[in-house]
Amino acid sequence: MKFEVTILGCGAALAARGRHPSSQVVNIRGGLYMVDCGEGTQERIRENHIRLQRLGYIFISHLHGDHYLGLMGLISSLSLLGREKAITVYGPQGLKEIIELQLSLSKSYLRFPLHFVETSPEGVNVLLDTKDVTVYSLPLRHRIPTTGFIFKEKKAQANMSKEAISKYKIGVRDIHLIKQGGDLTLENGEVIPHEALTSPAPEARSYAYCSDTSYLPENVAHIRGVSMLYHEATFIEKDIKVAKKTRHSTSAEAAEMAKAAKVGQLIIGHFSSRYSDDEVLLKEAKEVFHNTLVAEEGKTYQVNALL
Amino acid sequence: MKFEVTILGCGAALAARGRHPSSQVVNIRGGLYMVDCGEGTQERIRENHIRLQRLGYIFISHLHGDHYLGLMGLISSLSLLGREKAITVYGPQGLKEIIELQLSLSKSYLRFPLHFVETSPEGVNVLLDTKDVTVYSLPLRHRIPTTGFIFKEKKAQANMSKEAISKYKIGVRDIHLIKQGGDLTLENGEVIPHEALTSPAPEARSYAYCSDTSYLPENVAHIRGVSMLYHEATFIEKDIKVAKKTRHSTSAEAAEMAKAAKVGQLIIGHFSSRYSDDEVLLKEAKEVFHNTLVAEEGKTYQVNALL
Repeated sequence: MKFEVTILGCGAALAARGRHPSSQVVNIRGGLYMVDCGEGTQERIRENHIRLQRLGYIFISHLHGDHYLGLMGLISSLSLLGREKAITVYGPQGLKEIIELQLSLSKSYLRFPLHFVETSPEGVNVLLDTKDVTVYSLPLRHRIPTTGFIFKEKKAQANMSKEAISKYKIGVRDIHLIKQGGDLTLENGEVIPHEALTSPAPEARSYAYCSDTSYLPENVAHIRGVSMLYHEATFIEKDIKVAKKTRHSTSAEAAEMAKAAKVGQLIIGHFSSRYSDDEVLLKEAKEVFHNTLVAEEGKTYQVNALL
Repeated sequence: MKFEVTILGCGAALAARGRHPSSQVVNIRGGLYMVDCGEGTQERIRENHIRLQRLGYIFISHLHGDHYLGLMGLISSLSLLGREKAITVYGPQGLKEIIELQLSLSKSYLRFPLHFVETSPEGVNVLLDTKDVTVYSLPLRHRIPTTGFIFKEKKAQANMSKEAISKYKIGVRDIHLIKQGGDLTLENGEVIPHEALTSPAPEARSYAYCSDTSYLPENVAHIRGVSMLYHEATFIEKDIKVAKKTRHSTSAEAAEMAKAAKVGQLIIGHFSSRYSDDEVLLKEAKEVFHNTLVAEEGKTYQVNALL
């Protein structure tokens, strides 16, 4: 079942070298979840031919422009395109006011219900819980209230053995019960245990988004063992003082988080425009955590279970 | 002396066929004036290698997102880039509140003074008057309060004749006075008239921006004889009912305005995304007013005096 992340924008506040402000689309079993929505995100969506019918939820980390300024335009365009299905926006205190002020001044009447849920910058909180996924907010430390997000896929059901179905002539109703963990009782009273009828479900996968934030080791416990971690890496080690001052991370710090939390894969992005290429950023991260990739816009990353 | 208009975006609310939301940069004698600032304008500026040091004034026509959503990002980026020179933003009631709310929530402290001047959707009003230009607001008729803008270049001084300078040995101070319209009195009392010492200054040029608006013939008097008119042309004649309903113009109506006002050049833009090409829009305009061009993004149009 699908669990993938498409990077639409992974630049920092001053976009450089063709990068755009932050935005991602997470696809879990066909449902779309947007994380951050920097200026121009609707254009990125068109360029990447992403269809938003199955977008139901938008998560905004914080109110620096490069993480949310595309939201108003996206909302307006979805309405102009005739969307009727509700969207829920999760974001910090103030986001609702910004959007509603602009809707009111432009006399825009949306064709779809738009709900806001205020996130708390304190603690790990469940924001959304569906049959497919649980989404948590994660406290980050930046210059204004900021949260990260963790997407945890719900564990799938066990896979039914085709041989068992034909051998025992198991009906649809029983298949349903067995996949959920049940045993099969034959007419002669013999019990065939669940394990003999199924192969185990694949491991549930998870994805954590940490941007923007200073190095925050107390979050290791919260992101421990996630399949994939996107972590901002605005600076290189040489500029760690600027990182601390502006409450950003170095790429080595991002890698320290990945290593300590034993994540499967690290993706780094949000590089400062001061660097002329990504080489040192990647090198410094890989020295700490080998399985590191540089985020590439327009690319889709498969979230794989830990081996 | 320079008077030119660079189109950064000339799409309608739903950008289509590679067009972007509305924005233009007017260059008058080296000073830059931005008209509208749709989402992504800062990216258009980078793409077109426009340097904004000499930008002092931004004019926003109305609060539909495709005309102003790029303003917040542009302001933030200018500050991050170290700008210290003031910017004055002219726009409708509410624009100041939108920007100040976002600055406050993002805890952004701009490095440059940002002033707001509220425009009135009633009457023709002088917004700005400098040695180079007078900028007027023009009432438009749209679904929310909207103004157009007229840029009138100040009449240049007469050109001094080089022959006269050497013949009469005219000093710098006298040259100054003569260029402003004075005559020269020789030591023998003889008066050499201004006209014999100079060639006339070039005609002052002007540019009017009308977007978004329904067909509004009462504005003909206000834009009469402008050198160049940019007029929205969202629809073709077949869709005139939609134009009336949404308070937009057809391209023929834009051309009617140009014809009645005897303007030098008409540029049409803001085409609805429903049309697969510009052909009919241009054809219908040209049937009414031949000197019509379709706005092209990234292109700079010279504003020439009427012949």
